[in-house]
Amino acid sequence: MSTDEQSIRELVATWLRASKARDVDTVLSLTADDVVFLLPGQPPMNKGEFAEKSWAQLGRGAPEIDASSDIQEIKVLGDWAFLRSRLSVTVTPPGGAPVTRHGHTLTILRKENGKWLLARDANLLA
Amino acid sequence: MSTDEQSIRELVATWLRASKARDVDTVLSLTADDVVFLLPGQPPMNKGEFAEKSWAQLGRGAPEIDASSDIQEIKVLGDWAFLRSRLSVTVTPPGGAPVTRHGHTLTILRKENGKWLLARDANLLA
Repeated sequence: MSTDEQSIRELVATWLRASKARDVDTVLSLTADDVVFLLPGQPPMNKGEFAEKSWAQLGRGAPEIDASSDIQEIKVLGDWAFLRSRLSVTVTPPGGAPVTRHGHTLTILRKENGKWLLARDANLLA
Repeated sequence: MSTDEQSIRELVATWLRASKARDVDTVLSLTADDVVFLLPGQPPMNKGEFAEKSWAQLGRGAPEIDASSDIQEIKVLGDWAFLRSRLSVTVTPPGGAPVTRHGHTLTILRKENGKWLLARDANLLA
């Protein structure tokens, strides 16, 4: 496995760990300034909109979110790369039963100053 | 605009024209052999599965499908590229009223023997 591929796998692991811990600053530090998030049935989100949405989900009474990613493909193209994965997300409301959903992602990454960042992300979790 | 970007725009135009005409052979000729299609709430489709689905939609009584693509970004990375677009699809059942839906796409393309082909396609139309 190449160093780049290893770094991208670490980025995904850090992303999932920080998301579970609701560490929004760390999550944002893994995205390029021009990142675009695409979701089914929603308008695209830029970094500011994604940050706002992430901060809004930090309140008390928010469900616990635990995600895991099964990476199916990483292709490095110089300072760009793409990643395909199967995502599983378990959402547990306070006092409620956990609900798990699955879906795939297609992500474009870019290396800036030696660090890989999310640049475009299509999340097909329905 | 670069020659590659122009070729990719022509690929998209041909794809939409062939899809509307139900010209499955032409559509398939625009995809790489290892193409993967990702859709919300569905398992990934390979080329054979996509072909089967396309042929199955050719029967009498099938709705008319007319799609247009507003290309928002093309980035060429050597023999690879990615494309982001906003897709509008109008479906008209026989004798029925047209229904239009919108959604975004994130597509990875690859140049093989000088010809651009779809390699990975995430279609977020809900």
